[in-house]
Amino acid sequence: MHLNGRSLKIVEAMLTKAQERRVALHPIEKGGRFIDCGIDVHGGLRAGIELVKICMADLADVALVPGTVGGRSCPHVQVSTDHPVAACLASQYAGWQISEGKFFAMGSGPMRAAYGHEPVFASIGYKEATHSVVGVLEGRNPPTSGVIAKIASACGVPPSSVTLLVAPTASIAGGLQVVARSVETALHKLHELHFDMTRVISAHGVAPLPPVAKNDLAAIGRTNDSILYGARVVLYVEGDDASIEEVGPKVPSSSSKDHGEPFAAIFARYNNDFYAVDPHLFSPAEVVIQNVETGNVFSFGAIDDAVLTRSFYSG
Amino acid sequence: MHLNGRSLKIVEAMLTKAQERRVALHPIEKGGRFIDCGIDVHGGLRAGIELVKICMADLADVALVPGTVGGRSCPHVQVSTDHPVAACLASQYAGWQISEGKFFAMGSGPMRAAYGHEPVFASIGYKEATHSVVGVLEGRNPPTSGVIAKIASACGVPPSSVTLLVAPTASIAGGLQVVARSVETALHKLHELHFDMTRVISAHGVAPLPPVAKNDLAAIGRTNDSILYGARVVLYVEGDDASIEEVGPKVPSSSSKDHGEPFAAIFARYNNDFYAVDPHLFSPAEVVIQNVETGNVFSFGAIDDAVLTRSFYSG
Amino acid sequence: MHLNGRSLKIVEAMLTKAQERRVALHPIEKGGRFIDCGIDVHGGLRAGIELVKICMADLADVALVPGTVGGRSCPHVQVSTDHPVAACLASQYAGWQISEGKFFAMGSGPMRAAYGHEPVFASIGYKEATHSVVGVLEGRNPPTSGVIAKIASACGVPPSSVTLLVAPTASIAGGLQVVARSVETALHKLHELHFDMTRVISAHGVAPLPPVAKNDLAAIGRTNDSILYGARVVLYVEGDDASIEEVGPKVPSSSSKDHGEPFAAIFARYNNDFYAVDPHLFSPAEVVIQNVETGNVFSFGAIDDAVLTRSFYSG
Repeated sequence: MHLNGRSLKIVEAMLTKAQERRVALHPIEKGGRFIDCGIDVHGGLRAGIELVKICMADLADVALVPGTVGGRSCPHVQVSTDHPVAACLASQYAGWQISEGKFFAMGSGPMRAAYGHEPVFASIGYKEATHSVVGVLEGRNPPTSGVIAKIASACGVPPSSVTLLVAPTASIAGGLQVVARSVETALHKLHELHFDMTRVISAHGVAPLPPVAKNDLAAIGRTNDSILYGARVVLYVEGDDASIEEVGPKVPSSSSKDHGEPFAAIFARYNNDFYAVDPHLFSPAEVVIQNVETGNVFSFGAIDDAVLTRSFYSG
Repeated sequence: MHLNGRSLKIVEAMLTKAQERRVALHPIEKGGRFIDCGIDVHGGLRAGIELVKICMADLADVALVPGTVGGRSCPHVQVSTDHPVAACLASQYAGWQISEGKFFAMGSGPMRAAYGHEPVFASIGYKEATHSVVGVLEGRNPPTSGVIAKIASACGVPPSSVTLLVAPTASIAGGLQVVARSVETALHKLHELHFDMTRVISAHGVAPLPPVAKNDLAAIGRTNDSILYGARVVLYVEGDDASIEEVGPKVPSSSSKDHGEPFAAIFARYNNDFYAVDPHLFSPAEVVIQNVETGNVFSFGAIDDAVLTRSFYSG
Repeated sequence: MHLNGRSLKIVEAMLTKAQERRVALHPIEKGGRFIDCGIDVHGGLRAGIELVKICMADLADVALVPGTVGGRSCPHVQVSTDHPVAACLASQYAGWQISEGKFFAMGSGPMRAAYGHEPVFASIGYKEATHSVVGVLEGRNPPTSGVIAKIASACGVPPSSVTLLVAPTASIAGGLQVVARSVETALHKLHELHFDMTRVISAHGVAPLPPVAKNDLAAIGRTNDSILYGARVVLYVEGDDASIEEVGPKVPSSSSKDHGEPFAAIFARYNNDFYAVDPHLFSPAEVVIQNVETGNVFSFGAIDDAVLTRSFYSG
């Protein structure tokens, strides 16, 4: 399965409906292109769903479902996948720091598999040879030709073969693609805890789609809260029970000492320094691990509607 | 985006599966055609979903989702759109009175945009030049060639270019297409309250699919109750908060003096005269307005399961 | 509508994505083929959904939806159909005992309509002439060429025109396709109670997807519990109310004397002899019958989260 090729198909289909999806294609000087999904355009719910599929190499089903937060209607984003490691760790995880001049963004999407030098790839053993790459950036700045050149070089493709999609956190599509990371954050946490990723064979997750915030910093707060206090994940896992029982309690966000208040408050406490926040915080509220071999089910953590309510509806 | 063309594509796809969708195509003498979705045929859930897409110019995602009313299983109809004004006001809203001889029905669907003389079009500034038109009628009488001629003339197309789909309120597809109007009724109410429609950029809604009633009058009761007491809508809105705070309390059905009992009872009190009912009644039970610029969320109204229970399960 | 032809289309589409669906095609010596959906391969959620569509002759919409059992996240399987009798009784019902040498499995899928000699076909009056047949077997043993020959002969096709899909109960896809039988079990129960099947015109059902069990016997317990204690069905029915009121109380699983504890315990009590279990047990927890002619709604039974919790989470 060719991750970049799969995502590229979704990109091309999205571009044939650019007006309907309210996204805008921008060719980049010196080659390559970027697709604005929420900076100078509206983007929207459907653009967000396609952005998720692009992030996950079209290896997940993605849907809006009804839900509530604090008793008020709030759509939720559901993902399910039979290729959790490829879709989430090799593609969706925003693990590539793209830094070029003043430009900085975390890179997501299958271009990461073409680059392949993030530590996670050494562990999951995935590296993709490809002629074209597709990446997704959470941010508000259009990528420059320098950014494209850097990605192209890292991936071993010409700049003209780079497609980047960009959506700000404080946009409908941008927020949606972040909170579609319910399964991904569970997997990444398990990976950090040295759980054997090949044991996770399928996954299902759901998380609330937070209201778009007043700015990107506030949106980072709400989207994180959606995962930390609102995401529910089911993982279908092979192997022994003992290792699940050992690692499980460390998986949900409640295992972190920073758990318990809206992310914006936690973040402010650490002077908005991501790397100062307890990395164990970044995982779903609830993680249910179903052992498909022993038939035993282990569940860890729980959603916290009160924190979500404060996050979504107070300032 | 060409609304009639978009709906026509769904119509043609539906017709290639007419038997499976349990709908029947009837050519009209002197040109044009009508598609029976529930008069002499069964129609059904899937025909209903396609009818919704046709009503909304294929600018919405539509799905059945599980739900309950009065503790009993009752599927709900979910819609989401990134083109709420075009999909709902220019197309789905049943705002065109089609009256010809003894025939009377409220016309919905993109043919309204080709006609373009309803007051709402002056305000939203939409008028479509088209070679073919598609309309949806809630009713039990097949349209006559006179009806077709009148619509054709009003839309500036030949009768042979008119497609009408008809489903009675008391049919599965007919009921489904009505209760898919959760977002539409919220928008229409906001429009009546002179809210600037261009501010509403995306929307999500869900409402219960009521049991088919014993006759169309009773079905009008239940489908209205589904919206008035069961619909939950989220609107993604730009602009200032003050105008939302001012208009908001007037939006949900609870803002109406007639709110509080099943619509059939209200209707009977007014001798079944629609125009005697408080027009402010016709809106969803709950309307959540998310301001995507300020990040503030405003919610108005609430569902009322007790009234729904009386409406759906008592005679 | 040609049931085998419809299913065959889904089969061929599945095979073009065999790696992605994690299914494996095996040609059978002397003709025919079987598709492993969970014996030596992982299969998964998506393979399961396609297996359901194949079982139901692509006459149903099938989707995963979020849900909980015992307060923990547990995806549910939703089905809806406008052809309940064809999809469920003529195709999905596992009513054909396939016995050949040591091989034994209950056969499901549209091949049953080509065979047409099960008692249910005499009553629903359906028999399909076809060049190719598609069947689904719940089990762990690959079908032999003898099995293929037997089915081919019974269906009047050459062995080379037989496609069998196999998934063990204790597999993701196998479990999913079983619990997609919410509507089917309601219909079969009604049929056993001599209710006129032609009166059921549409249907909607939802049931929890149980955790894969440690072995197939335990999985039979959990998948049955999903239906017996977790399935909620809405049937859209024509005709009189009296017959519904009379038959209704006998429809849900709670009408059985064996109702009330996990199926594995019931089964053990009868020494794992299916035919000793009260046949009235095999139906959904809740059955809501909406009379689309009289507008009256009748509901019978209720889900039992406590039994599901014991079944899914206790050994």
